[in-house]
Amino acid sequence: MNMKINDYIEIINENLDNFLPIEYPQTIFKSMKYTVLLPGKRLRPVMCLETCAMLGGEIENAIPTACAIEMLHAQTLIHDDLPCMDNDDYRRGKLTNHKVFGEAIAVLAGDALLTFAPQIITKYSKALTPSTIIRVLNEFFHFAGARGVIAGQVVDIESENILQATNKDTKELEKILEYLHLHKTSDLFQLSMRTGAIIAGAGDEKIEAITDFAKTFGLAFQIADDILDEISTFEQMGKTLGKDKEEGKLTYVSLYGLEGAKCKLSCLFEKCYGIMKKQDIKSEIFNNIIEDILKRTGIKND
Amino acid sequence: MNMKINDYIEIINENLDNFLPIEYPQTIFKSMKYTVLLPGKRLRPVMCLETCAMLGGEIENAIPTACAIEMLHAQTLIHDDLPCMDNDDYRRGKLTNHKVFGEAIAVLAGDALLTFAPQIITKYSKALTPSTIIRVLNEFFHFAGARGVIAGQVVDIESENILQATNKDTKELEKILEYLHLHKTSDLFQLSMRTGAIIAGAGDEKIEAITDFAKTFGLAFQIADDILDEISTFEQMGKTLGKDKEEGKLTYVSLYGLEGAKCKLSCLFEKCYGIMKKQDIKSEIFNNIIEDILKRTGIKND
Repeated sequence: MNMKINDYIEIINENLDNFLPIEYPQTIFKSMKYTVLLPGKRLRPVMCLETCAMLGGEIENAIPTACAIEMLHAQTLIHDDLPCMDNDDYRRGKLTNHKVFGEAIAVLAGDALLTFAPQIITKYSKALTPSTIIRVLNEFFHFAGARGVIAGQVVDIESENILQATNKDTKELEKILEYLHLHKTSDLFQLSMRTGAIIAGAGDEKIEAITDFAKTFGLAFQIADDILDEISTFEQMGKTLGKDKEEGKLTYVSLYGLEGAKCKLSCLFEKCYGIMKKQDIKSEIFNNIIEDILKRTGIKND
Repeated sequence: MNMKINDYIEIINENLDNFLPIEYPQTIFKSMKYTVLLPGKRLRPVMCLETCAMLGGEIENAIPTACAIEMLHAQTLIHDDLPCMDNDDYRRGKLTNHKVFGEAIAVLAGDALLTFAPQIITKYSKALTPSTIIRVLNEFFHFAGARGVIAGQVVDIESENILQATNKDTKELEKILEYLHLHKTSDLFQLSMRTGAIIAGAGDEKIEAITDFAKTFGLAFQIADDILDEISTFEQMGKTLGKDKEEGKLTYVSLYGLEGAKCKLSCLFEKCYGIMKKQDIKSEIFNNIIEDILKRTGIKND
């Protein structure tokens, strides 16, 4: 069956809803469900399912992992939005978790998702062997942890105001920025695609190529985010914009300027296409995702 | 070999230190390590190892899980101490995590421990089969999550000032308090003992008895904590005391009075001894732990 992106999104939304019950004490389950089910593009789980499919695996087998990754993504959003972190009031056009449930519950809802998500993998991945489940879990623990997405968040916090405060040259700043986004952004894409590939039974060489694709895609995605922060409105993005600039944050736009960032973004997506071609992988869905980003950032015309 | 409690503590401290590296970005690893390595009784990991040993298992096989549980315990402490939660400045006589590293890093250190801990189980439990590892992980996910220790924390938050605010009778308050502590306190003891039993290869009936022991022990332990909050000094406990009373919190002492609480505590430990006798389980270490608590709460003389 030739799946469209909306078919995937429907599968993911339905399963996320089913996987997340409302039990006693209801506050915590409602809070978890609130952020996980905020309307979104479900990009990470879509990429997990599509990677599995394009490498010859069964989508069915990757659904629990794909949903677990979306729960992990929601966890990072809940904690990133806290007053002690980015202090954001809106996310995807809705109030952030702590604005609705209070800070204490928001902290706990994030915590709860961090163990609820891998539990979905162990409970519902019926067709996978115990060894494959453990392999998938290790990917999850790695990219969710202090060597993964959290490393990015820490360097982000520590790099605040770095533009004004230091005399570092562009090359050094570029290195910090790349490290930051390789972890903060690429890691969840790596997790999505690597687990999709593992579940499909791909060999090491394929997994390496997929990892390279995911890293590159993640950097491009972050540059797109920085560009959109500069050129979009609240209505288009559903969150407060222009904060990066206001807070003197190190971003691709502050480093290269708007046109330089667009140029870098195009290059990275070219690299993505190159990897797919070399590996003889065809995916209409990845093509569409890339083309959509190129249009939204104004690099290509509608 | 007849292990003493201090032998266990030494094994645990050494392994905790080895399992926790200091990598880049150092802040997060230092923050994780700071709270995990605060001097403590290591009661939960000791109970995991001793349960494994007393049921005929190899201590060696339970070390990664025991250490993972101590890391989980540290995670709950870090997040519980946050300003938006219990807002505590001291823990085990030292400044709390957010007082040293700031709130943002404290939130992230807790998050990082939640995925670092189960990774220790999958990476280092070499002698366990993949199926047993998954079984142990499911215990971890369950008791760490919204159906476990977090459920207790949520009800704790929601029950604040319940003593003054409601007209509930003692029976109802008792039910709330028991629910709260079964989760907030007993769950980590259940996790410790159940995983110890699973790793030892214990059968279902043994595991049920062990679960019953852990639940009962946990309630007793919490009552002891409430009593010590009332009768101890900061120097003895290493944390700010008397806050429960000040904040009108529902505790066993506020519900039954000091003598009533002591009586309840003795009864629960009697039940623990009964379970061990019925199961023909002998453990000098559990005897010593119980006797020590009875002495510190003034129920038995030194």
